[in-house]
Amino acid sequence: MSIWDKYSLYIEKNWEQFLEDLKEFVSIPSISTLPTYKVEVLRTAHWLEKYFQKLNFHHVEIMHTDGHPLVFAEYKASNPLLTLLIYGHYDVQPVDPEHEWETKPFQPTIKGDCMYGRGVSDMKAQLLAQIFATQAWLANSPLPIHLKYIIEGEEEIGSPNMQTFLLQHKDLLKADVALNCDAGVLAPDIPSIPYGLRGLAYFELELKGPKQDLHSGLYGGTIRNPIHVLCELIAKMHDANGKITLPHFYDKVKPLTDEERTLLSQIPHSDEEWKNIVGMSELYGEAGYSTVERIGARPTLEVNGITGGFTGEGAKTVLPSKARAKISMRLVPEQEPEKIEEYLREFLLQRCPTEIKWNLSLHSCSPPALMNLKSPYMQSAITALSKEFGCAPLFRREGGSVPVVAWLQKILGLDSIMLGFALPDDGIHGPNEHQNLPLLKRGVRVYCSFYEELMNTNK
Amino acid sequence: MSIWDKYSLYIEKNWEQFLEDLKEFVSIPSISTLPTYKVEVLRTAHWLEKYFQKLNFHHVEIMHTDGHPLVFAEYKASNPLLTLLIYGHYDVQPVDPEHEWETKPFQPTIKGDCMYGRGVSDMKAQLLAQIFATQAWLANSPLPIHLKYIIEGEEEIGSPNMQTFLLQHKDLLKADVALNCDAGVLAPDIPSIPYGLRGLAYFELELKGPKQDLHSGLYGGTIRNPIHVLCELIAKMHDANGKITLPHFYDKVKPLTDEERTLLSQIPHSDEEWKNIVGMSELYGEAGYSTVERIGARPTLEVNGITGGFTGEGAKTVLPSKARAKISMRLVPEQEPEKIEEYLREFLLQRCPTEIKWNLSLHSCSPPALMNLKSPYMQSAITALSKEFGCAPLFRREGGSVPVVAWLQKILGLDSIMLGFALPDDGIHGPNEHQNLPLLKRGVRVYCSFYEELMNTNK
Repeated sequence: MSIWDKYSLYIEKNWEQFLEDLKEFVSIPSISTLPTYKVEVLRTAHWLEKYFQKLNFHHVEIMHTDGHPLVFAEYKASNPLLTLLIYGHYDVQPVDPEHEWETKPFQPTIKGDCMYGRGVSDMKAQLLAQIFATQAWLANSPLPIHLKYIIEGEEEIGSPNMQTFLLQHKDLLKADVALNCDAGVLAPDIPSIPYGLRGLAYFELELKGPKQDLHSGLYGGTIRNPIHVLCELIAKMHDANGKITLPHFYDKVKPLTDEERTLLSQIPHSDEEWKNIVGMSELYGEAGYSTVERIGARPTLEVNGITGGFTGEGAKTVLPSKARAKISMRLVPEQEPEKIEEYLREFLLQRCPTEIKWNLSLHSCSPPALMNLKSPYMQSAITALSKEFGCAPLFRREGGSVPVVAWLQKILGLDSIMLGFALPDDGIHGPNEHQNLPLLKRGVRVYCSFYEELMNTNK
Repeated sequence: MSIWDKYSLYIEKNWEQFLEDLKEFVSIPSISTLPTYKVEVLRTAHWLEKYFQKLNFHHVEIMHTDGHPLVFAEYKASNPLLTLLIYGHYDVQPVDPEHEWETKPFQPTIKGDCMYGRGVSDMKAQLLAQIFATQAWLANSPLPIHLKYIIEGEEEIGSPNMQTFLLQHKDLLKADVALNCDAGVLAPDIPSIPYGLRGLAYFELELKGPKQDLHSGLYGGTIRNPIHVLCELIAKMHDANGKITLPHFYDKVKPLTDEERTLLSQIPHSDEEWKNIVGMSELYGEAGYSTVERIGARPTLEVNGITGGFTGEGAKTVLPSKARAKISMRLVPEQEPEKIEEYLREFLLQRCPTEIKWNLSLHSCSPPALMNLKSPYMQSAITALSKEFGCAPLFRREGGSVPVVAWLQKILGLDSIMLGFALPDDGIHGPNEHQNLPLLKRGVRVYCSFYEELMNTNK
């Protein structure tokens, strides 16, 4: 029996138990952004700690930060061929709008091929798939690869303590290459590897007009309404071509090369299908770019939330004192989040009427990143995916942001390989998030294969 | 002892008890717009019922509607000189933002000259001042005026059942003139009478983009964000001169005559003081009009509330499915609320991208009104105010809306006289609402005086 046969068999035999483990993991509401869930986030870290202890890892530790803790777990191989740093996160997004969920977000439910629950696709299933692979391997044979897991609880809030953690534990985290499991494939039968990630700059803008809420009949029409001003500012952030109007915003954005446009055009994508997924009759974006280019290779600005005045049921004739918006920008390589904040401040100074006071705060930021497609480790990932799917993976630039990829590069000098088995329509961050389970099983086999390839390459 | 001396003495002797009664009345949270307060609204109606019963009124009745009930109370004079219909409302606005209150909104608190509490100025104190005057009068002598009170519980939600009520009870409500106590004066020493009221058309606009909330990194930049579209629509509702851009909006608005502009310019008003009251460094409004004209004589459009996407603490990278705004317009004579809805729909059809679905609903509407300044009843009110304040009242056009004034005219053929002792900076509809108590006491005397003048005029 080949090692491939052995772990494949193990995965089949243990699949039901794996699903039970995943359900238990998803059922803990580890919402990192809501302070009331703090204890649940900690409980999730302890769940992982126990899981690694059960696998007889040599060093398992809850490592505290100024926010939610990280889980560190180490498997010490004798005479290791290489050291692999495996990154994941165990925190999840909030569930609102909760009434749009068809199942309870924290009662994971299997319907058809999918498991539904908050955080299952982003990224509890992705993380466990990799750990299940380790378990399957170790149950059959020793692994000549030194493994170091760092699993954080603050990815969904922008990993505010990760840089400090990396700086403080450079020795502990020494490795040859990093494996980041927070990724997906384009379709159940189309393997792919992200090689570019966008950065993120997420702001909160608060405007203040009158010193308190006023009666709109008595005061309306005589002063600036902060909601009107906020709307005007947001309306002015894009021009008629869908371009962002912040001064200097595109200064560092490199034009797409013909070669890159060709590479991106090979990604199977249908605008019609995209319309179906989002449920809209038309797409819209920056003029002159395809949807695939708009997603991964061009920067964007989206208002993620807005609030002001009376938002309850019914009518209240109030002229509000305040209005707020959450505004985030996705950045492409060479754009620096710190500079983006300067540009936004300049925009507000130029455009906001002086009698409206504004306050801008940064929720989180992360730099964009590009990965090395030519390394032997990347080659191992490509081979593992090809073997499982029967075709070579496509390479794509992700619309999302995974700040840790840039930080691992900068602080530890580690290149990352991104793998994962989420799908574009898994509904992550929205209601009815789900994970395709047959695809997840393929993922577990890919991670086993990846170990095998790394061993072959490094022998 | 003159009758004036008698009731003045009675008011002095009973003032502490009056304040206790007012406190009790204000302490019941009769928030008509919030369904959970329904029982409190009913409790408030019963409180009034008991109060009128204590005054030995001949007919006191809770009259049910499809919404909150009205209180009807009748004092039957023998050989009445005239019949006076007295209008008031006992419902109040919600309290949010509650954290900006310095006292508990429903624990009325006296600090200095003022009593603080939700609804005290709008209009529980205004209503009780008139009832206290009746009580003071009746304690001293019979009143040869037939009184009919109608006190509704739905004014703050646009009086949705008032028109039906008036149509159903035309005989019961027969009178010579109406007294509407839902008004104020310009300053503690400047009596005034509103002779014009603006109408109101209050809408809720909901936009829907993608079928559910999406991840802003994966989908952002490829479709219309409903928050962006809502902001663009709102930004386009005014032009650079502060004029409203809905098609046909100004069609029925009559230009202000020189005579009216002169009348309005006599109202003591200081833009500097207005800035202090609102707490802003600049005023802003429709170009070409003074602040006083903008308040009462020109139509306005204000967004009273906006919400969409993630509005909690922290960051969530969501591309929202929906965004909503509450948009209200104040209308001047000849503008019809029903037409305004058509114009708004036309604006949305012209301006909203087709892939964004919109839904517009009308929360409430009321027509504008102008009152007769030349009637003998109005003369009685003018004399009563002049006697108490030592100077003649000013005449002004109110920025607010009191739909019942137009309905009483249209359905019962009754002209209204508006009196009241609120002040422009009482903070109605906002936090820390309060009522000036020495001014309120003058108000009680004015209402007694008003009875006396009505009797003299009609003898």
